[in-house]
Amino acid sequence: MDELSFIKWIRSGQKKDRNISIGIGDDCASIKVNKGKLYLVTTDMLVQDTHFELERNKPGEIGRKSIACSISDIAAMGCTAKYAVVSICFPAKTGTRFAKELYRGMKEAADEYNIKIIGGDVVSSKKLLVINVAMLGEDSGVKPITRSNARVGDAIMVTGTLGGSILKKHATFKPRLKEGLILNKKFKVNSMIDISDGLLADLNHILDESKVGAVLYEDKIPVSVDAKKLSRKTGLSPLHHALNDGEDYELLFTLSDKESERLLSSCHISIRVSKIGHIKKTGGITIQDSNGKLRKIKPMGYEHFK
Amino acid sequence: MDELSFIKWIRSGQKKDRNISIGIGDDCASIKVNKGKLYLVTTDMLVQDTHFELERNKPGEIGRKSIACSISDIAAMGCTAKYAVVSICFPAKTGTRFAKELYRGMKEAADEYNIKIIGGDVVSSKKLLVINVAMLGEDSGVKPITRSNARVGDAIMVTGTLGGSILKKHATFKPRLKEGLILNKKFKVNSMIDISDGLLADLNHILDESKVGAVLYEDKIPVSVDAKKLSRKTGLSPLHHALNDGEDYELLFTLSDKESERLLSSCHISIRVSKIGHIKKTGGITIQDSNGKLRKIKPMGYEHFK
Repeated sequence: MDELSFIKWIRSGQKKDRNISIGIGDDCASIKVNKGKLYLVTTDMLVQDTHFELERNKPGEIGRKSIACSISDIAAMGCTAKYAVVSICFPAKTGTRFAKELYRGMKEAADEYNIKIIGGDVVSSKKLLVINVAMLGEDSGVKPITRSNARVGDAIMVTGTLGGSILKKHATFKPRLKEGLILNKKFKVNSMIDISDGLLADLNHILDESKVGAVLYEDKIPVSVDAKKLSRKTGLSPLHHALNDGEDYELLFTLSDKESERLLSSCHISIRVSKIGHIKKTGGITIQDSNGKLRKIKPMGYEHFK
Repeated sequence: MDELSFIKWIRSGQKKDRNISIGIGDDCASIKVNKGKLYLVTTDMLVQDTHFELERNKPGEIGRKSIACSISDIAAMGCTAKYAVVSICFPAKTGTRFAKELYRGMKEAADEYNIKIIGGDVVSSKKLLVINVAMLGEDSGVKPITRSNARVGDAIMVTGTLGGSILKKHATFKPRLKEGLILNKKFKVNSMIDISDGLLADLNHILDESKVGAVLYEDKIPVSVDAKKLSRKTGLSPLHHALNDGEDYELLFTLSDKESERLLSSCHISIRVSKIGHIKKTGGITIQDSNGKLRKIKPMGYEHFK
């Protein structure tokens, strides 16, 4: 059983709640707190040797990343991040200096995005550094953008460049909070997600939730410099890295072709935005090469459970 | 540096926020969501071999405990628990059955207290099972009870019995959600906390935040049967266990002597409630034996950092 099936199994046992407008299975859940006003909630756990390495990442960088990952989830709803509560499990014999630098990284990231850290929990274990950030956001008067509303014919677009994030970006990325909010306020975006599992895997989440398929244009995928660098080490193609590597934390979204043209010709978003494909009725993900030739392509999955 | 000093250091760098009525340093933080309505937030991390052992605790019991700990934090504010987001880090090769039983334990505890699990995160590591629960509560029209308002002359009271929770109660306790809310609605409680670190340590949190001292009556401490059982193994006195053992998750609170008498003679709370001491102006914690003899007593601390 993989993570997705586990979450599907959890969802199957859920009852509806009239105050929960978005529940399990999106980047954030959303709670109606009063007339028209929504609170968004997301939680993200970062574990040593899975999401960072003490040998390669400085404590401040790890702290920063833990906050940034949750911000990215709120960005993916096109909303505003507000408050965070953080839990930290320190391994035995953590130095005071390390603990303070870790927290300073959290605080700096929170300050940069105008988020308040309002509570937390500090525990210890023999072995691992683990950080959990639960973050609250607000709808800012716009409707959160879910994964489940991609329409047939929608253009598929992505911010920034993709692949090779393990070389650096996974620990230094800038969550696209401002861009997500602008997309939501200025354009009619139908579906959105942040790329944490990889372009194909996260596109697949949108397809799954929206019950549609997709075609990607091979020569339009914005392959990063680090995807090329990494490819020389791994022997896999830069495209493979752009399609499959996780933790780029770019926004992947769909909107009508007309809206996508309006976006491309506007100056609202100052970072690179690429149109990389379109939504079709069914059939999973197909990729089209520069000769127009189509082939089916599958996200690489990973199994959490035996 | 210990956990408390670390949290104090964090608090020293915090700016005021007019929407945060209770910030870092209480059982929950509290956010003003609209006129008069508050949302409470708490986060708790449970780590294998620190908060549970896979050899001794069943997966359902571990899941149940993770939810119950957060409920207890909201109980300690005298408020209502509403929503939870859960993060789970499964160790490599976790079986599907284990994962499902763990979640069933969470779900059962949530259902029992009318809480909705609305989102989460599933990750994996090589080594440890780690669970984080972030929970949201509502004020239910009453003001949350903090740790910082104990008054000189207040009676110190506690629910249930204390000590030896490691034998069983730490994994099976019933969070005092109903009792906390009744205390808040029917009585003028000045300060409250749940006992997770131990009676002395948690009383000390109240004294610290309220800038007062306390006298405890040795023969009034409700020593549990398990404190006596454990004492036969450890050679320490049952009283020592009742004073110092953590994870009883009972409510410790202070209120005027008059209110405490009204509580003791009322039938609002169906579980045992004991008056165990009173608040004085200064001087940390003093304990008074049955002969009226006083001695100073200090909570056992534990250092998280080198």
